[in-house]
Amino acid sequence: MRVLSGIQPTGRFHWGNYFGAIRQYLALQGHEQSFYFIADLHALTTIRDAALLKQNTLDAALDLLALGLDPEKATLFRQSDVPEVTELTWLLMTVTQMSLLEKCHAYKDKVARGIPADAGLFTYPVLMAADILAYDSEVVPVGVDQVQHIEVTRDVAQRFNSFYGGEFLKLPTARVLDDSAKVVGTDGEKMSKSYGNTIELFETAKSLKKKINSIKTDSTPVESPKNPETCHLFTLYKLFATTEQQEVLAARYRAGGMGYGEAKNTLYEAAMEHFGAARARRDELALQPDLVEEILQGGAAKARKKAREVLNRCKSACGLAIQEI
Amino acid sequence: MRVLSGIQPTGRFHWGNYFGAIRQYLALQGHEQSFYFIADLHALTTIRDAALLKQNTLDAALDLLALGLDPEKATLFRQSDVPEVTELTWLLMTVTQMSLLEKCHAYKDKVARGIPADAGLFTYPVLMAADILAYDSEVVPVGVDQVQHIEVTRDVAQRFNSFYGGEFLKLPTARVLDDSAKVVGTDGEKMSKSYGNTIELFETAKSLKKKINSIKTDSTPVESPKNPETCHLFTLYKLFATTEQQEVLAARYRAGGMGYGEAKNTLYEAAMEHFGAARARRDELALQPDLVEEILQGGAAKARKKAREVLNRCKSACGLAIQEI
Repeated sequence: MRVLSGIQPTGRFHWGNYFGAIRQYLALQGHEQSFYFIADLHALTTIRDAALLKQNTLDAALDLLALGLDPEKATLFRQSDVPEVTELTWLLMTVTQMSLLEKCHAYKDKVARGIPADAGLFTYPVLMAADILAYDSEVVPVGVDQVQHIEVTRDVAQRFNSFYGGEFLKLPTARVLDDSAKVVGTDGEKMSKSYGNTIELFETAKSLKKKINSIKTDSTPVESPKNPETCHLFTLYKLFATTEQQEVLAARYRAGGMGYGEAKNTLYEAAMEHFGAARARRDELALQPDLVEEILQGGAAKARKKAREVLNRCKSACGLAIQEI
Repeated sequence: MRVLSGIQPTGRFHWGNYFGAIRQYLALQGHEQSFYFIADLHALTTIRDAALLKQNTLDAALDLLALGLDPEKATLFRQSDVPEVTELTWLLMTVTQMSLLEKCHAYKDKVARGIPADAGLFTYPVLMAADILAYDSEVVPVGVDQVQHIEVTRDVAQRFNSFYGGEFLKLPTARVLDDSAKVVGTDGEKMSKSYGNTIELFETAKSLKKKINSIKTDSTPVESPKNPETCHLFTLYKLFATTEQQEVLAARYRAGGMGYGEAKNTLYEAAMEHFGAARARRDELALQPDLVEEILQGGAAKARKKAREVLNRCKSACGLAIQEI
């Protein structure tokens, strides 16, 4: 089973990214073939700053490797290092109905919000289809909001196959990520960069403490019993704690006599502990940029090999000359 | 001065293609650098038949070489053999305003005619911009109907340069082709494939004779004087004849006593004579497909070298990692 996940390098990852997606992606590595790419070409639709994109891309690679992505088990690469994907994008563009793209939420939402749309945003689903189809991906783990794009991918692949009369492209299946572990931000809303309520995975201890201290709580006095089920602090603590640990803290909430400061400290320690090993690996990797680059280039070479095979299949189907790498 | 021309492999070239465009393109070869590409990626928006596209592409190469394109003076290649162009296409896509593409005639016309539009047709101007910009093209000879696309190319290049703060892309200039040598078809309308009134450059002698015989003339009797200026036959003859030769035939029109059959024969002989040497070269080249392929691949290698230079400049500007070929 070939699994593919793309991750946008939009900045340092936060708890929401990790528990809502990255952790679940990484759990799939080690299947026959798993491909993880840093979607720098997609990021160009929002980032137009070379230094920032470079930094974000490196950060994404460091974060993923630190969190356990194992280059022996999975292929990690930058999207832009596989030019076969943009070649395939054009082939797919010529079979993609405009009406299909016009229906896509991500584009409609942006236009509805009055953001002047560029062609990159409009055709984003075609690049995404090429990303997926270029590797004969079978399973694509995605959030609920991305399911529509997998449908577009399937439609485009089917249309290509039907125009050219063969099974040139393999139809992928979406695996919807479990979002039951809903991650709230410091203000109790969904944790999201656009709300400015995120806690990053590898905050410095000082910054982590500050952010956790800023989490909104109610004004129940220290001595009164408190309800863990309605408290954001407790919700966040559940991300890190075993059932047993959760019960311990919940009992202290209900007993009264515990201030929120204490709960915040418990959360702080749990988070530091949870990401401690990854943080150490990240610090170590950050000192070896050449190693990271080597991993990315090795990944790209593997990815290109597969993508070239699929691209050549499609180019032949269209009557285009094919090249070996 | 770097000149670039793209030619769609939509089938065998006819007199209209030749006198209206190809002859004028070829007159520009031998400039410091001239690039001629067979636009097979563009053709995918209309041709979805592998055998036909392959045949058309080979025919286009044979025609151009037979007509005098000299691989020593100019670079001839297939568009799809330069993957850098589709990579650049994506970079440009992210800076192309939707409103710019929505205004393009070619797309609007198709939609107005009720043809279901695909994204390839809509984003066609972005691929065309990449074709032009990838080679730092300075001059692009185009028909009047393509001037808008050069304007789009300039807009997109300017927007990229302005977002990333530098002269990464060179702004091209359109050179509008001389369409004074208007080529009429066998029915007196503009010669065009869609009107079914074309005469191909390398028709067989028999087919050429038949087509010329089918040219519509009026019913003036043989013995009466005729007006060369209102006769399609004469208009077509002017394409091939010197001023002196034109005067000779015009005098015979005006004198009376000449039937249209005789004029048709004169046109036939002039056309056979005009394309005679090219026809012989084409027949010879058609027997050497390996040589043609070698020319195309040699051209692609030269084109890729230049395109890689421009692409790397743009990728660096965006913060993407660059690769050497």
